[in-house]
Amino acid sequence: MPNPTAAMLVIGDEILSGRTRDSNLHFLAGELARHGIDLKEARVVGDDHGAIVAAVNALRPAYDHVFTSGGIGPTHDDITADAIADAFGVPIAVREDARAILAAHYERAGLEFNAARQRMARIPEGARLIENPISAAPGFSLGNVHVMAGVPNIFQAMLASLLPTLTGGAPLLSQSLRVDRGEGEIAEAFGALAAQFPDLSFGSYPFVRNGAHGTNLVIRGTDAARLDAAMARLAALFPATG
Amino acid sequence: MPNPTAAMLVIGDEILSGRTRDSNLHFLAGELARHGIDLKEARVVGDDHGAIVAAVNALRPAYDHVFTSGGIGPTHDDITADAIADAFGVPIAVREDARAILAAHYERAGLEFNAARQRMARIPEGARLIENPISAAPGFSLGNVHVMAGVPNIFQAMLASLLPTLTGGAPLLSQSLRVDRGEGEIAEAFGALAAQFPDLSFGSYPFVRNGAHGTNLVIRGTDAARLDAAMARLAALFPATG
Repeated sequence: MPNPTAAMLVIGDEILSGRTRDSNLHFLAGELARHGIDLKEARVVGDDHGAIVAAVNALRPAYDHVFTSGGIGPTHDDITADAIADAFGVPIAVREDARAILAAHYERAGLEFNAARQRMARIPEGARLIENPISAAPGFSLGNVHVMAGVPNIFQAMLASLLPTLTGGAPLLSQSLRVDRGEGEIAEAFGALAAQFPDLSFGSYPFVRNGAHGTNLVIRGTDAARLDAAMARLAALFPATG
Repeated sequence: MPNPTAAMLVIGDEILSGRTRDSNLHFLAGELARHGIDLKEARVVGDDHGAIVAAVNALRPAYDHVFTSGGIGPTHDDITADAIADAFGVPIAVREDARAILAAHYERAGLEFNAARQRMARIPEGARLIENPISAAPGFSLGNVHVMAGVPNIFQAMLASLLPTLTGGAPLLSQSLRVDRGEGEIAEAFGALAAQFPDLSFGSYPFVRNGAHGTNLVIRGTDAARLDAAMARLAALFPATG
């Protein structure tokens, strides 16, 4: 059975303006690979209602899961929850269980549970909450769309709450070989080997270190025995020169 | 006159598998902001012909410019040039000027100009070359799609060759204020101020440092006088507490 598929949607003007370098995509990619969910595509859009709705509605029918990051805080530019509700055509309102979680959190912290903070209890109808052990304000899953915070440590904590509830497949395995030759030297033999293992993915990543060209060759797949067989062939093609 | 708009397409299995953390999007975002081109969207797809063609043909009619990174090296998984040619419905073949640049480069380096390396001279019909001062193999622009390498220092060098040839608009300016209060404390006043400056973009980015909550407030726009006016109002709302 093929692995479930997924897309990510990163939401936030700060990524597209160059202010902030996103790190959630890279973190999610690694976690999904380990969990056996194939990340097929990612998109980044700004804090724009129409752009979020359009991206969610393009991605959710195309993949088993859609993971979003960003735009669920207390400020006026946090518009993700409303956009998700609109994308699904469902109402959104303050939900009692989310409100209670936040009220308890702010009472413990001795902070006012004001109108801006109560906004974070607005959840689209029919969603399941995603626990946030860092700052309480929950994420949520609506259908196959999982809505999480953009602040990296909160995103990571929410993903840790969510991922065990999703059915995974075979983890993506990878092995790599460093070769002290430029990509153009090894391309032909590497490509010919790749053609003999169509069930595996062969990637080559050139680098320059101390003025010398080298290439990292990476083979990825879900079948450990096939991966071992391909790596043995690769090691024979490019014996260690050191 | 509004600024030109742009999208980025990042191409490569290594980004979606979690092996590599992309840095080209963040670099491009900063350069475009300075050049007055508004980056509106980014997408990441794998080394998949159909996915690249579909993304290019979704993005190129929607924005003034599309910038791609990745997939133009010498190995079998470098399929971007063919996918771009297919997306435009034009033929692709080895082009003499590109071949001559590469032949001279490998002759200087004392390396064989083999079949894999000659593959990097395959350019879609009608494209303009983008100079690559690092490793010679050129990028290219076809219509409004600018095709560049994925290796970060080569991507950056190609962008430096390309960007001066593109008409920019008003650079995106930003000013920020650090406030020693949580996002939920300042959200209401910040949102009310934002509503009075609809031509500017107001963003708030919470952080925790030494256990204390703080928020970076950022205002962005292209009109320096308006930005100054908004910042003066912001500083009055949240006077320095230190």
